[in-house]
Amino acid sequence: MTDDESDINRHHAAKMAKKKAVRDKILADKTEERGLLIVHTGKGKGKTTAAMGMALRCIGHGMKVGIVQFVKGARATGERAVFARFPDLCVVEASGEGFTWETQDRARDMVLAAGAWQAAQAMMADSSFRMVILDEINIVLRYAYLDFDTVLAALKNRPQALHVVVTGRNAREELIEAADLVTEMALVKHPFRAGVKAQAGIEY
Amino acid sequence: MTDDESDINRHHAAKMAKKKAVRDKILADKTEERGLLIVHTGKGKGKTTAAMGMALRCIGHGMKVGIVQFVKGARATGERAVFARFPDLCVVEASGEGFTWETQDRARDMVLAAGAWQAAQAMMADSSFRMVILDEINIVLRYAYLDFDTVLAALKNRPQALHVVVTGRNAREELIEAADLVTEMALVKHPFRAGVKAQAGIEY
Repeated sequence: MTDDESDINRHHAAKMAKKKAVRDKILADKTEERGLLIVHTGKGKGKTTAAMGMALRCIGHGMKVGIVQFVKGARATGERAVFARFPDLCVVEASGEGFTWETQDRARDMVLAAGAWQAAQAMMADSSFRMVILDEINIVLRYAYLDFDTVLAALKNRPQALHVVVTGRNAREELIEAADLVTEMALVKHPFRAGVKAQAGIEY
Repeated sequence: MTDDESDINRHHAAKMAKKKAVRDKILADKTEERGLLIVHTGKGKGKTTAAMGMALRCIGHGMKVGIVQFVKGARATGERAVFARFPDLCVVEASGEGFTWETQDRARDMVLAAGAWQAAQAMMADSSFRMVILDEINIVLRYAYLDFDTVLAALKNRPQALHVVVTGRNAREELIEAADLVTEMALVKHPFRAGVKAQAGIEY
């Protein structure tokens, strides 16, 4: 090692020690464990995918997860094939009709949304679940297929230990205010623009 | 159903039919299937989590995934417990030293980064893999533990069918330019601010 390298390394160690001290201090008073209300919103990709990643983590820790898909269809997805291997730890309810522009039937969409919300409420009331994912519920709320205030009240009154993950574009401001953890997935670049179609393992 | 309701439903059906037509047109010329270079960057949460969600999807489709963790440690994560159940479809290489501010040892970090990069290159050259995830490589690149141009060239020259997912804050502009799909996870709200600590199923 040259003298220069040694200097860089010493400088680096000092800088990292300082960084660690700052970080340790930040983390020292983070002692609370409780169920979080988590929101993934924005126009970018990764909202549902990151929620599925959280489901995966829970399953790995032996924590039971419920997933309610509010607008996604009956299409076989990769994640569902894996989740099916853990029937005691993962329950999936899919309203099964695809996006609303596929059905073009508002009355029917509303009935399905109400059914999905009922399933979600049952999961949230069942203390065996540690996480409930309300996938794309923001879309359903945007079309007013469900009453926003009713949903928000139920989310706020969830059991203390329960994590609830809400996904979908256009999360309402009151939902963001009520949440503990909010990430906006912003679209920087999308392969559809380059003529590439939706592919297994990426989009589903 | 009231007349008003019928009107709303008819209007909705017409609007959705139009939306579907626009969408179908957009999708019609998306016929290409090829390996994508995907980047998850930004200060928000969900970068690694969404990459793990993509790994989950691949596994569910029977596609083999390699995951190289460049700065994350040997800590048992939920996802790894699940991935361990699919040894033929998921290979995880963890450099095993935690974040750089934990080690405070630049020389050692560089050796580990070089080893992780070697593992990554081997996976990218092995045609049995359909996806390779380079988790937190952006951090390693930022500290210049690896030569950026070498990494970028390897990513650009990856096999045609291989998806590569790159995660971590501060993705370099040249990497974003080379990528097919880029999402910036923006931090809107973080529970650490409310005194809540990192929890199983959420952070790991």
